[in-house]
Amino acid sequence: MSSDPPIISSAQNPRIKELVKLLERRTRKQTGLTRIDGARELLRALDGGVAPRVVYVCEELVQDEEGHLALRRCRQAGIEIQAVSAKLSEKIAFGERREGLCALIAWQPLALDELRLSKQSLVLVVQGIEKPGNLGALLRTADAAGVDAVLLCDGVTDATNPNTIRASMGTLFTLPIAQASSPQAERFLKEHGLTVFTARPQSSTMYWKGNFKAPCAIVVGAEHEGLQDTWATPELIPLKIPMLGKADSLNVNVSAAILLFEAVRQRA
Amino acid sequence: MSSDPPIISSAQNPRIKELVKLLERRTRKQTGLTRIDGARELLRALDGGVAPRVVYVCEELVQDEEGHLALRRCRQAGIEIQAVSAKLSEKIAFGERREGLCALIAWQPLALDELRLSKQSLVLVVQGIEKPGNLGALLRTADAAGVDAVLLCDGVTDATNPNTIRASMGTLFTLPIAQASSPQAERFLKEHGLTVFTARPQSSTMYWKGNFKAPCAIVVGAEHEGLQDTWATPELIPLKIPMLGKADSLNVNVSAAILLFEAVRQRA
Repeated sequence: MSSDPPIISSAQNPRIKELVKLLERRTRKQTGLTRIDGARELLRALDGGVAPRVVYVCEELVQDEEGHLALRRCRQAGIEIQAVSAKLSEKIAFGERREGLCALIAWQPLALDELRLSKQSLVLVVQGIEKPGNLGALLRTADAAGVDAVLLCDGVTDATNPNTIRASMGTLFTLPIAQASSPQAERFLKEHGLTVFTARPQSSTMYWKGNFKAPCAIVVGAEHEGLQDTWATPELIPLKIPMLGKADSLNVNVSAAILLFEAVRQRA
Repeated sequence: MSSDPPIISSAQNPRIKELVKLLERRTRKQTGLTRIDGARELLRALDGGVAPRVVYVCEELVQDEEGHLALRRCRQAGIEIQAVSAKLSEKIAFGERREGLCALIAWQPLALDELRLSKQSLVLVVQGIEKPGNLGALLRTADAAGVDAVLLCDGVTDATNPNTIRASMGTLFTLPIAQASSPQAERFLKEHGLTVFTARPQSSTMYWKGNFKAPCAIVVGAEHEGLQDTWATPELIPLKIPMLGKADSLNVNVSAAILLFEAVRQRA
């Protein structure tokens, strides 16, 4: 270990300043870089073949099994490991993460033509989501349902936001994710012969009447406004999730989960 | 309006101090009171027959239709309305709510023997939930699925937390909610002849194999640990939600939604 570079302990170190600046959306956009805080998310990135450029580590703060595993896998993959002091590690950590691991990573969504769909494809389309945490939660749900791809349309939020990464449990890095405008996405789904179901409270067709065994996409809309009018052409099939209580809307992640797992059920 | 009491503009006013102190769990527990910030939640409380003791209002900040409706309904119901200045209203508002409405309300969960179940009852049991926002989100989902009751077991979080109320969209006040220990709840469900389904990733029975047409309860567990061993007696039926991706768990609210809406689907 004699060749290891010295431990960084100053927040003025230029590499540390770079890392901290990545908490700003503008910097992430300019650089195409983001940061991963936490072992679980780092493991998912490695699973997804996204190798960090460098991992800043304070080994005394790495205490659980996942942390040790993540560090071992980074070392095996020849990824640069840079030690930082405990004080600095805690200072630069995102949110309340104190896991002693922060990775610098380049990630961007795929282009539509890079997506590979299976024969019985299942695609989740999310339109106009505003909150990073909601987008992350949707990705976690999409992962569990085994989707082929997620299309982010008219994105208001930024998929590389550390809150998205955290709420996604790192599945941002394992899911094929593409970004597109709604018309581009609609054209893509049509060209691939997918049936497109939209979540529409006004629909008179209950969601379980949809035939999800066919290759299909499920489109859910923004938290407040629901789906925009772009997703209302006659070829699309609007489906209703019944609301049997007093409130008049479901959380967008809950709507997506109900529709995606209906597809899982029908296909089983 | 000449008999209206004077507008309160000082944060030192004892009634305002009382309201602010209700942001602390300890005070809510001691007094049995909590506060509702926001028009939608206030409307749900009125729907649920829970009348605020007083509503602190800054009318110039009440700008949307729901706000005006809430205020009108409070006036019709003879609830005390106390005007506060805009500055004070913004100062005492919870989180980022700037709706000009804050109500003082007495609320507590029911006892088990106060619950009335229907013949085809559907009950959600949540065990050991830690985060107020997660509990609120669960209530919103339970409301949409039209449950008869929600049982809060081994509660770590406090249902009267303003974050719970907000995330529940006010359904905290319209749902029959009881608090109990897990053994008490299990006994209650047994006595009422309910089939009890538990969400268990280790189960080999897919969730759609469960017969949700019978009167039944769905039990979901805490965010991190899942269900405790108390919910593992042989009469209970563990069900699995398949995980088809890379992550190894679902959000508790998503799990509940998938199971509850499978019941809705089977019963339709």
